[in-house]
Amino acid sequence: MRTLNVDLGSRSYPIHIGPKLIDREELITPHLPTRKAAIVTNEVVAPLYLQRLCATLARAGVQTIPIILPDGEIHKNWQTLNTIFDALLREHCDRATTLIALGGGVTGDMTGFAAASYQRGVPFIQIPTTLLAQVDSSVGGKTAINHPLGKNMIGAFYQPRLVLADTETLQTLPAREFSAGLAETIKYGLIRDAAFFDWLEQNIDALLALDPQALGHAIEHSCRIKAEIVAADETDQAERIQLNLGHTFGHAIETGTGYGQWLHGEAVAVGTLMAAELSRHTGWLNNEDIIRIKRIFHRAKLPMQGPALKVPVYMELMAHDKKTEAGKLRFVLLKSIGKATVKNNISIDKISSSIKTYSTNS
Amino acid sequence: MRTLNVDLGSRSYPIHIGPKLIDREELITPHLPTRKAAIVTNEVVAPLYLQRLCATLARAGVQTIPIILPDGEIHKNWQTLNTIFDALLREHCDRATTLIALGGGVTGDMTGFAAASYQRGVPFIQIPTTLLAQVDSSVGGKTAINHPLGKNMIGAFYQPRLVLADTETLQTLPAREFSAGLAETIKYGLIRDAAFFDWLEQNIDALLALDPQALGHAIEHSCRIKAEIVAADETDQAERIQLNLGHTFGHAIETGTGYGQWLHGEAVAVGTLMAAELSRHTGWLNNEDIIRIKRIFHRAKLPMQGPALKVPVYMELMAHDKKTEAGKLRFVLLKSIGKATVKNNISIDKISSSIKTYSTNS
Repeated sequence: MRTLNVDLGSRSYPIHIGPKLIDREELITPHLPTRKAAIVTNEVVAPLYLQRLCATLARAGVQTIPIILPDGEIHKNWQTLNTIFDALLREHCDRATTLIALGGGVTGDMTGFAAASYQRGVPFIQIPTTLLAQVDSSVGGKTAINHPLGKNMIGAFYQPRLVLADTETLQTLPAREFSAGLAETIKYGLIRDAAFFDWLEQNIDALLALDPQALGHAIEHSCRIKAEIVAADETDQAERIQLNLGHTFGHAIETGTGYGQWLHGEAVAVGTLMAAELSRHTGWLNNEDIIRIKRIFHRAKLPMQGPALKVPVYMELMAHDKKTEAGKLRFVLLKSIGKATVKNNISIDKISSSIKTYSTNS
Repeated sequence: MRTLNVDLGSRSYPIHIGPKLIDREELITPHLPTRKAAIVTNEVVAPLYLQRLCATLARAGVQTIPIILPDGEIHKNWQTLNTIFDALLREHCDRATTLIALGGGVTGDMTGFAAASYQRGVPFIQIPTTLLAQVDSSVGGKTAINHPLGKNMIGAFYQPRLVLADTETLQTLPAREFSAGLAETIKYGLIRDAAFFDWLEQNIDALLALDPQALGHAIEHSCRIKAEIVAADETDQAERIQLNLGHTFGHAIETGTGYGQWLHGEAVAVGTLMAAELSRHTGWLNNEDIIRIKRIFHRAKLPMQGPALKVPVYMELMAHDKKTEAGKLRFVLLKSIGKATVKNNISIDKISSSIKTYSTNS
């Protein structure tokens, strides 16, 4: 087992990474203020891991309340969130009841926002079962639900007390979702760590084969990069923006196609290609950099082409993005592979051209 | 104008108290990061003060977006909250847009939770126009909406950047709501300040006559007591519980009769009588104390008798209360006038008897 600590003062917490962690009650119980926990999961993950987690907690004398949500980003909304609140109230859960998210990013985001808001805040634990959640969404305390006019528009910064990344759960993850998780892993190399990007180029096949050593390294290294950035900027005022490489375009793809058509990581992959193209237009990346980025996404089995969305649709959706301030579009771009930066005042022509390079029929 | 500071480290903020503060742009603008603000108010307050506040902000070059909610506790729910989010997104409000609550406690609670959750947190200013909001709900950072199974169940701790208590707005407040606000004012004397309780006994008629000096003193002193308690316990882990004198019974009255039938302060008044009776049963208050408490509520024109709710209904509703931990009911009681304490493990008989003393036909 590998352990790293997210350093946020009184809100610091450990991330444990390794196989079969779901069975380790001694890792979980120190973080529970009382012997009562609600496990929020979805209809896909529940048959796979819910009983095992309940049994683990039962061994420690913890009463568990399972809450099973429908699966998918399309359900990341107020109605689904409310089913969590309904269950917590029906079961008389109090302010010391811990909420445990067992599942992917959608489950983690909704459970985290439920934990932040239920009775103004209850303890929260993340047990991510997708690669995306293990390397990204379970680290950093961003929780949210979607609004018809924008992704993650309603939420809170709310830190878990513990993250347990059981790498064996990735064996049941569909290949498409595994690839979507790789998109965020690759992003960490691109924004901050050229050596990690090199390592990923050399180990992408081992990762796709679920090699335990490679997985452990990639997840730990990704979490470490994210944890460093989050520790420097918990509430997303400055440094943290670099984590959004590819996300401004990516969120437009997710929203514009209707939540759930594109996986988040897939949209980020195409968004990152657009951001790389914009970086090339700005004179930073060269053609060889673009080829390396395209090649690793291709080898990771990620989409290389966006949906049939017109440029004006992108522009309208991006104007709603949370990263937009005072009406100005800001983009995270790459100075080089391993070095991200933020740029305002990019001409519409360049943005439009970058979108078109990776769009279907637009 | 009187000013006091709520001392919460980096989240500290000033409370200004006095007449005609709504017209003072120089008090507001230092707290706005950009020249864009959404003013959330309701259909009763809007015709009275919205234009004046918009004009004040326009003089400082601030663009304002009015959001007018339906009036009443019955609308303090997700559906109404969503109308705030809809408007903010429609108007492309970003993370630097300030939300200003103009109205009573319901408006403040909902606007505060909207500010806490919109894009994971935007700046927030309170301009309370009821006595209850000026002495209680606008101080301390508790924000929430109701759930059909319990009051204030979904919310956040989120501090405003400024509270402007314009005492002239109380001239348009219905007498019944003014009295409801007095209930919380009286509570501060009961829990922590016997001298203030004495002062209230001597000045209750001046307050009911809206004497400006008496109002200024009562509001400032109430805010000061609440600010001290909040500063010691921002997230309601310990000391802050004493603010809930009368609220366990009171919330049961509000929920049991359907939100909006009883004003919050009215329910707290009857709840405080029940808690005082329970304090007498516990051997702390004497008959003379009970008479003084009943007399001041009577002079403040507050209800002296609860609704026709049966004891088992109270017990069920109180079991859902946020102050309930690990299934045990805890009550804030009075050791004496001016000194509150918390007690667990009170016999059902004593609770039941205290409820019946102030219930209609139960």
